[in-house]
Amino acid sequence: MRSGKLVIAQGGGPTAVINQSLVGAVLEARRFPRIERVYGARFGVRGIVNEDFIDLSAESRAALEAIAATPSAALGSTRDKPDLDYCRNIFASLKAHGACWFLYIGGNDTANTVHIVSEEAAKEGYDLRCIHIPKTIDNDLLENDHTPGFPSAARFVVQAFMGADLDNRALPGVYVGVVMGRDSGFLTAASAAARIFNGDGPHLIYLPERAFDRAKFLSEVKSVYDRLGRCVIAVSEGVRDADGMALSVRLAGKAVKDAHGNVQLSGSGALADLLCEEIRSELGITRVRGDTFGYLQRSFAGCASDVDRREARDVGEFAVKQAIRGGGDGSVAIRRSGDYAVDYGLVKLVNVAGKTRAMTDDFIAASGSDVTPAFKKYLRPLLGSDLPQAARLRGGAVAKVLKR
Amino acid sequence: MRSGKLVIAQGGGPTAVINQSLVGAVLEARRFPRIERVYGARFGVRGIVNEDFIDLSAESRAALEAIAATPSAALGSTRDKPDLDYCRNIFASLKAHGACWFLYIGGNDTANTVHIVSEEAAKEGYDLRCIHIPKTIDNDLLENDHTPGFPSAARFVVQAFMGADLDNRALPGVYVGVVMGRDSGFLTAASAAARIFNGDGPHLIYLPERAFDRAKFLSEVKSVYDRLGRCVIAVSEGVRDADGMALSVRLAGKAVKDAHGNVQLSGSGALADLLCEEIRSELGITRVRGDTFGYLQRSFAGCASDVDRREARDVGEFAVKQAIRGGGDGSVAIRRSGDYAVDYGLVKLVNVAGKTRAMTDDFIAASGSDVTPAFKKYLRPLLGSDLPQAARLRGGAVAKVLKR
Repeated sequence: MRSGKLVIAQGGGPTAVINQSLVGAVLEARRFPRIERVYGARFGVRGIVNEDFIDLSAESRAALEAIAATPSAALGSTRDKPDLDYCRNIFASLKAHGACWFLYIGGNDTANTVHIVSEEAAKEGYDLRCIHIPKTIDNDLLENDHTPGFPSAARFVVQAFMGADLDNRALPGVYVGVVMGRDSGFLTAASAAARIFNGDGPHLIYLPERAFDRAKFLSEVKSVYDRLGRCVIAVSEGVRDADGMALSVRLAGKAVKDAHGNVQLSGSGALADLLCEEIRSELGITRVRGDTFGYLQRSFAGCASDVDRREARDVGEFAVKQAIRGGGDGSVAIRRSGDYAVDYGLVKLVNVAGKTRAMTDDFIAASGSDVTPAFKKYLRPLLGSDLPQAARLRGGAVAKVLKR
Repeated sequence: MRSGKLVIAQGGGPTAVINQSLVGAVLEARRFPRIERVYGARFGVRGIVNEDFIDLSAESRAALEAIAATPSAALGSTRDKPDLDYCRNIFASLKAHGACWFLYIGGNDTANTVHIVSEEAAKEGYDLRCIHIPKTIDNDLLENDHTPGFPSAARFVVQAFMGADLDNRALPGVYVGVVMGRDSGFLTAASAAARIFNGDGPHLIYLPERAFDRAKFLSEVKSVYDRLGRCVIAVSEGVRDADGMALSVRLAGKAVKDAHGNVQLSGSGALADLLCEEIRSELGITRVRGDTFGYLQRSFAGCASDVDRREARDVGEFAVKQAIRGGGDGSVAIRRSGDYAVDYGLVKLVNVAGKTRAMTDDFIAASGSDVTPAFKKYLRPLLGSDLPQAARLRGGAVAKVLKR
């Protein structure tokens, strides 16, 4: 039986629980004498190419547990999207360091990198077991019921909208909250779980899966405002018009692009400001406020779903078990069974790599500006326990006595 | 001994714990047979003028406790800043409903309203006990060591910057987080408590108490970025230049004003976007992101400081005790004793009404872009227990093997 090093890395946008997966993998790996050392690559695959490794073999269990409870990627991450040459350099470094196992935690771009490295190793006949561990707040990986990181981000969005709706109820007006999600509306849709009583917001939810129509939007906002005297709106940063162009891009003029050629949607309040200005000028409503949840929703300290924590830990541990038992390379996937349990499987890397899962029609209301009960049922168990509950005064109205 | 109704209202911006003060007052009031009914005015003093009262006398204790744990103002709030005529209408309504006690929870504008109503009652020789109960996330009331609402908002800011700094560490660049606070920098300054290890952000903190100098700002950002390869910045929405004009106003061109004549600073991402654009264009740094914490910081569900919850409850209860025992009208104030305990007193309304407390020099570092250890010592006990702790990997570097 071959022995050697295990190399693990974290890629893409951080989440509240990606370190759980790291620690799950590291602790599990340390159980196997065949795994001589556990190396963590700093700043994703860039760290592999640069041989920027730290040895996690000796890190104490208590220290690792503290890391697991810390949001963001403890090893550092990268937005690099490696091409074939880059992947060859990754493979060369892994080989030079005697790696027999390569685990990479991330989204669909990360899965793609794992896939290319896996193929390079196979071409050379080098025995490198490559496993992709899922992570993304966007919940946009195929083959998965949901992905680690999404439930905690969703919980943040729920707590944010619960508070924003209470605030808006106290000081009525229109509130627009812009939520992350380039191509998939899951995270924005999660805002629906903030509703407890009838009349609670968000009253309107706009997803990238449906073309954003300005006239329809204004008409829907007006309708809610006329009925309730207020309106709370959840909007995905990725909403796009019928031509498929993101609103935030159309308004930005010059767009900032990342290494993947993706336009930067986050880290700017422009979309919320634009929508607020439209509502103010077109509907004549005075009190209109917009917030962009930005980086808080993926990294806020102290808001993780316990279900998410457990599952993120599990997928890291499961990845090592799969790696050590041999067999084909693959991507760990979460499946749901019953109501509510999960099990894990290993699926082909090509089924996940570079592909994007969007919300299906059964999750989106016919209006196009809300979710269905099926989505709420899907979401509820993911949010975890001890979700804050908003309460409302019921007290009876007092009769008026003044003659006016 | 006179008996009658007690009327309570909530004014100004909601907080995470203003309902604790409401419930503290209501439960305490129900202990006194002299207080025949407890009326809540909906939407602040506007509800008093409109006789929009609900009877809280019969609300169950469990229901009230659920309200206490809910952020935002359960009675509704108002931004109205009553003039003398308005206050006469308030008084007329209170009198018509047989109110003997008037409690109003809010900030310095609210205290001013209580003061005018108190004077009106005195002029008429009507026995109305008027007490102001402090609340504001800005922490800007005179006579108080700190004000209920601030500790919970500060906790949100700390957890947000803790997460944002971890995120920025994983994907280095410049991050700008804009925090509420028109005239007082306390809430922005609280971000300093997010630092645990050396090198943790926020690395720079800009407060309204110090003139914002664009050149100094850019030079400081460059200096941190050159040293660490990243930079996390906390900026108060109220930062202003040497002429005293708020940056967000100067850039806004047309400014949206509220009923108090205050320019709307919150509910827009413009300041963060402006600062990011400056850093991008002047320093040539590519990855620059800005978030505006907006309404989340005052209403986010599930992020209250337990110390804040207790104190907010206490000031509501204390207000009723003071009201029932007679004596002069006043404003409840929190005083700190020892390390760390508080007691409460009643101070003159004029000492609080319409006045603003800013951070004193001993809390602001000589650089003008950080806080002092004295401020951190002041803040720490307010944040409450079980604050999330960020951990860091220590693992030793692995030697390189590739020749490049």
